[in-house]
Amino acid sequence: MKNYLFLLSIVFFLTANVFAQSAEKAKNEIRKVMDAQAAAWNQGSVEGFMQGYWKSENLVFVSGDNVRRGWQGVTDNYKKSYNTREKMGVLTFSELEITILSKDSAVVVGRWKVAGEPKDSQGRFTLIFRKFKDGWKIVHDHTS
Amino acid sequence: MKNYLFLLSIVFFLTANVFAQSAEKAKNEIRKVMDAQAAAWNQGSVEGFMQGYWKSENLVFVSGDNVRRGWQGVTDNYKKSYNTREKMGVLTFSELEITILSKDSAVVVGRWKVAGEPKDSQGRFTLIFRKFKDGWKIVHDHTS
Repeated sequence: MKNYLFLLSIVFFLTANVFAQSAEKAKNEIRKVMDAQAAAWNQGSVEGFMQGYWKSENLVFVSGDNVRRGWQGVTDNYKKSYNTREKMGVLTFSELEITILSKDSAVVVGRWKVAGEPKDSQGRFTLIFRKFKDGWKIVHDHTS
Repeated sequence: MKNYLFLLSIVFFLTANVFAQSAEKAKNEIRKVMDAQAAAWNQGSVEGFMQGYWKSENLVFVSGDNVRRGWQGVTDNYKKSYNTREKMGVLTFSELEITILSKDSAVVVGRWKVAGEPKDSQGRFTLIFRKFKDGWKIVHDHTS
């Protein structure tokens, strides 16, 4: 009986360990997506930045009292709002907290800042990431 | 071979059906939580309203540029902001879109409105729900 409990606790330990490892792997992958987004933005590429988003009509982007839908609409809106390199300025993400919800979904809370012209802007975001064949993508963005 | 494919497609169909049914069940349960929240609010009970939230220090509530943490802190803040029955007014949720992410996680986008004194207020929210032993609870709220 004692041996059985010992074996069982080993199995539990290994399972928990595998789960923790895969959660850590997912978090790293998500951080990489966001690093790539910021890097693309800071090279002046809205299209590059938008690679972090789900390329679907079902992408949801909530900002203030507006809801925008669809990858193309969100892209067009970014291009309109940040239509010069100066306006795009320098984007940084900070205070990222990633919570894995399931093997293919996660939520990220954090702070964004654009140091640009004519003035800096900043705020908070909640992102829902889902894992697709081509990696983790933002399917839902609520920015304030 | 034909029979095999036929059987397989039946299995697929049944599995998909079971999944769709359980997703529909989860959506109904989440709608009920939110209905109960609005009902409690409209009876003047912030505590009742807060039963829809995860009673944990890890509850996250993002609003504008602020992040509040913990069920008690969020409750205290609601009580402070809505310290009279007139201010609480009438809360309605509308345009709810519920997406099931996994068997125990979901995201809800929607619109809230408080018709109260001295003036109405309204906005959009993104909620992350998780399923606990005592049902679906909001673990993360981003309101703008």
